[in-house]
Amino acid sequence: MTRRAVVLLSGGLDSATCLAVARRDGFQAHALSVDYGQRHRVELDAARRVASALGAAGHRVVAVDLRALGGSALTSDAIDVPKDREARAIGEGIPSTYVPARNTILLALATGLAETLDADAVFVGVNALDYSGYPDCRPAFLDAFREVARLGTQRGVEGRPTRVEAPLLSATKAQIAALATSLHVPVADTLSCYDPVVPPSAGGRPLHCGRCDACQLRRRGFLEAGLPDPTAYVR
Amino acid sequence: MTRRAVVLLSGGLDSATCLAVARRDGFQAHALSVDYGQRHRVELDAARRVASALGAAGHRVVAVDLRALGGSALTSDAIDVPKDREARAIGEGIPSTYVPARNTILLALATGLAETLDADAVFVGVNALDYSGYPDCRPAFLDAFREVARLGTQRGVEGRPTRVEAPLLSATKAQIAALATSLHVPVADTLSCYDPVVPPSAGGRPLHCGRCDACQLRRRGFLEAGLPDPTAYVR
Repeated sequence: MTRRAVVLLSGGLDSATCLAVARRDGFQAHALSVDYGQRHRVELDAARRVASALGAAGHRVVAVDLRALGGSALTSDAIDVPKDREARAIGEGIPSTYVPARNTILLALATGLAETLDADAVFVGVNALDYSGYPDCRPAFLDAFREVARLGTQRGVEGRPTRVEAPLLSATKAQIAALATSLHVPVADTLSCYDPVVPPSAGGRPLHCGRCDACQLRRRGFLEAGLPDPTAYVR
Repeated sequence: MTRRAVVLLSGGLDSATCLAVARRDGFQAHALSVDYGQRHRVELDAARRVASALGAAGHRVVAVDLRALGGSALTSDAIDVPKDREARAIGEGIPSTYVPARNTILLALATGLAETLDADAVFVGVNALDYSGYPDCRPAFLDAFREVARLGTQRGVEGRPTRVEAPLLSATKAQIAALATSLHVPVADTLSCYDPVVPPSAGGRPLHCGRCDACQLRRRGFLEAGLPDPTAYVR
């Protein structure tokens, strides 16, 4: 019997690698992207390309207007995305790019889709070591959410709760870069940047700013892994 | 210092009573309604009237397209809302009106808004005794979500997690009817029906069908409480 999985796919390197892991592990993978009013909406285009390239069985985009909740640089034009932070500052404290309760919301939506598709697993690309100080990337948070998924769903009532898989949880960015490369993730199609430069021509890939936390972590990952980084950075 | 609360307000009797409880307990109450593509979207109009009547400090509507996830009679035209179910059948099994992971999604959004507003509490009108077989109305589910809210938020990291209050959890519908009446909830403004009849004139209040599970529970509640029921039922 084919096992199904819902894979949260932002279009970034981590979630794309997650999708590749789900495919490697034999899952029929249903990608789920969330259009939450983020500044970097071109990442949804990246998600489409990645889902197709990695053989996802489907790709759904759910619109959630998180701007109505406010509070983050990623969903508000009034808050700047931090740039050129020193390496040691990344991971210290909760940055302005934190979207309140984002992973809880994303996992809740994925759990809902898993119910509908009768999927055995939800894959999420959260990452604890290199994480930028987001509380909802921590292992204990994931364990708590697993209980919510078990107790709040029909599958859980039936004694076969949807598993929440976070295969990159303890990986460094270098390990993710290596895994992505070995699993043939189309890295150049993924988009990690919080503030990308969108090219004027339709269909062109956006450029990574190279300065936000996400760009710095991505670049350093490939560098430390000793692997070629096909990403197009502005600087 | 004024304590703030986010109150999930569907526009139904239970969530309206929840809002009244939050106000009674001294909270500055910020109502949050979710437009999730439900059939009964007129309930959002009901929510607006109720928020205003009960002195909410604000009322936000967040759009989430749960139809993209599928799987429920409440969000799909392809699945019928069950009618005229016998009383003993209500509460047995999971009905087709179950929206996959709905309360997890609603609580996640409320927790996000609570972060933004720095609110001390989230109020939700879930109800375990009269619940119609939804797994995500159970006390154990709420306890699990409390852990998610504690571990996945900035407030939790700071050691002052937003509390999740479900004041109606153990109440019967008769007790809710009595509480609503004593707290001056504008009952005629609330809308519980899964399949209401919308009047042709703008501004007119929709009629309750009187036959879906929600209508039957509501009617019986007032009957058992020995209180007048101001609801306009079709039959």
